[in-house]
Amino acid sequence: MSEVMDLPQPYLLFLGDTTEKGYAKTAFGLRDWARDRCVGEWSCGGATVTTGLPRLTPKEARARGAGALVIGVANPGGVIGDSWLPSLVEALESGLDIISGMHAKLGDVPQLKAAAEHHGRRLIDVRTPPRNIPVASGVKRTGKRLLTVGTDCAIGKKYTALALARAFRERGLDADFRATGQTGILIAGGGIPMDAVVSDFEAGAAELLSPNASAQHWDVIEGQGSLFHPAYAGVSLGLLHGSQPDVIVVCHDPDRKYLLGQGFPLPDIAETIDMNLRLGRRTNAAIRCAGVSLNTSRLSSADAGRLLAEQSAQWGLPVADPMVAGAAFERLVDACLEN
Amino acid sequence: MSEVMDLPQPYLLFLGDTTEKGYAKTAFGLRDWARDRCVGEWSCGGATVTTGLPRLTPKEARARGAGALVIGVANPGGVIGDSWLPSLVEALESGLDIISGMHAKLGDVPQLKAAAEHHGRRLIDVRTPPRNIPVASGVKRTGKRLLTVGTDCAIGKKYTALALARAFRERGLDADFRATGQTGILIAGGGIPMDAVVSDFEAGAAELLSPNASAQHWDVIEGQGSLFHPAYAGVSLGLLHGSQPDVIVVCHDPDRKYLLGQGFPLPDIAETIDMNLRLGRRTNAAIRCAGVSLNTSRLSSADAGRLLAEQSAQWGLPVADPMVAGAAFERLVDACLEN
Repeated sequence: MSEVMDLPQPYLLFLGDTTEKGYAKTAFGLRDWARDRCVGEWSCGGATVTTGLPRLTPKEARARGAGALVIGVANPGGVIGDSWLPSLVEALESGLDIISGMHAKLGDVPQLKAAAEHHGRRLIDVRTPPRNIPVASGVKRTGKRLLTVGTDCAIGKKYTALALARAFRERGLDADFRATGQTGILIAGGGIPMDAVVSDFEAGAAELLSPNASAQHWDVIEGQGSLFHPAYAGVSLGLLHGSQPDVIVVCHDPDRKYLLGQGFPLPDIAETIDMNLRLGRRTNAAIRCAGVSLNTSRLSSADAGRLLAEQSAQWGLPVADPMVAGAAFERLVDACLEN
Repeated sequence: MSEVMDLPQPYLLFLGDTTEKGYAKTAFGLRDWARDRCVGEWSCGGATVTTGLPRLTPKEARARGAGALVIGVANPGGVIGDSWLPSLVEALESGLDIISGMHAKLGDVPQLKAAAEHHGRRLIDVRTPPRNIPVASGVKRTGKRLLTVGTDCAIGKKYTALALARAFRERGLDADFRATGQTGILIAGGGIPMDAVVSDFEAGAAELLSPNASAQHWDVIEGQGSLFHPAYAGVSLGLLHGSQPDVIVVCHDPDRKYLLGQGFPLPDIAETIDMNLRLGRRTNAAIRCAGVSLNTSRLSSADAGRLLAEQSAQWGLPVADPMVAGAAFERLVDACLEN
């Protein structure tokens, strides 16, 4: 069976022995975007980072209904630290599954494998795509779809999709955030890690991720990579074709001059819109761009407001920072929803 | 180590118990394009199909220097037939490795696995990509590269690349055919099955496939899929970016109206050229289209000549059928090689 991941919730967030906030991005992302599905946090000796959620032992978390402990931290090597093992085994003993978004596979740690088998618990690696993904059919599906696309990687596609899905729901619409990367999958409680799918099945995975739905339902799909990124453009194109979006929103960071980790200049916004629409028309002739999402977090409020207004005039489209509530963001939401 | 496949040669072609020529395309492809690396053929009871090569037992083939038996047939289920097993085990006993391009993995057949271990032989599945493929760097490599691209899948990209690589060599140039699919890999004796690579590493695999070379060396790279195919466009884009071609040749079948297995109309040739050049410029600003390869096998010689001339006038480019030697093909080769 081809099945999109469906994670046991709510979560107990595990912070390991982390002393630097930068390594706990996953835990903070879950606190900020899935607060109602996090019962508390747990850590082992030496940890100084906290999400501010109640500190609960695995047993206490289980008693409050937790389904799984989520490893909410990464360490420099992307491995599962030896010092974490007693806490992780304790979680399995207490009746929790363990979920990881790390590169290292949980089942490759003999102690965890043995404990999970002994206690009948699951070890879930969210970077592992489902089996038996079909080749894409290209057949148009029912329901509405929005895809966030980017001028680069790591430029706000996940947060923009989360903010739009939330705004759609606040307006009373039926909307799902569809996750395509490990942090998004943890937040959503499911999804497909698109970058881990074998190339031949990339668009098929995107079709599987946002199935037929009722006519008024919105899937708000987390974009990946960029059509202009020399390493990841294939991921972006497979996701674009398989998502068949009715609407795209272009995500950009005004401070970014070069592609992440590469010497290539960023494409401009007009070029990004044009290329996504041209290629996206292949599976949805009605595709349109509703607007632009800008990360203005490094600007003063006044400077940010000026930049959004300037950019909006330049592209003839709503331009907003989705992390800043207000009129600009509401105009972007309006534009996404208009027919 | 990241290593591009390097297959043991020459081959003994195995035809199984096949009675229909259509199932022996791989064997015929090897006979036609790698004749000098095929010592003979072998089959088991009931086979009626022959490549016309000398019939040799595995032992005789080994004595003539064969390095491997190649399964040159497919059967409807894509599986390894039970009736083939005695012949395959005999090959291992005789000192040959076994190479397969089928979906089923050789090592999943217990009898073969045991025999290979016992005799110290290898079971090689050419659909398995190398391990530890790097993420693409996008850095420009030395040497010249040509990539065949298509309006659709299965439209002549492999044969066009093979014919061009041969023509380049006949003109005294240093040229390698770089294989990206299982049949091409068997013909070349190596390559990477691009459609089996995990999406994040697709462009990186293409970089690995055609490494830095001397300034006058040509890599002639077998294209995959089409930027316009709703299932496989991501494969095509990763291959385009990672290949960094100086030259593309567009492959088309004038009889094909709809994408293979899909209801989508084929893009026209101008659109195909434009999109490949636009996207390809990202990693090679000097990319250009040298011409068009048309499959005219279903036309009379006179009709084919007329069509090639008409199309050449329409696109302002050399248009040839690479399977037909002559002035049209020489003009296409000239255009590929001009600076």
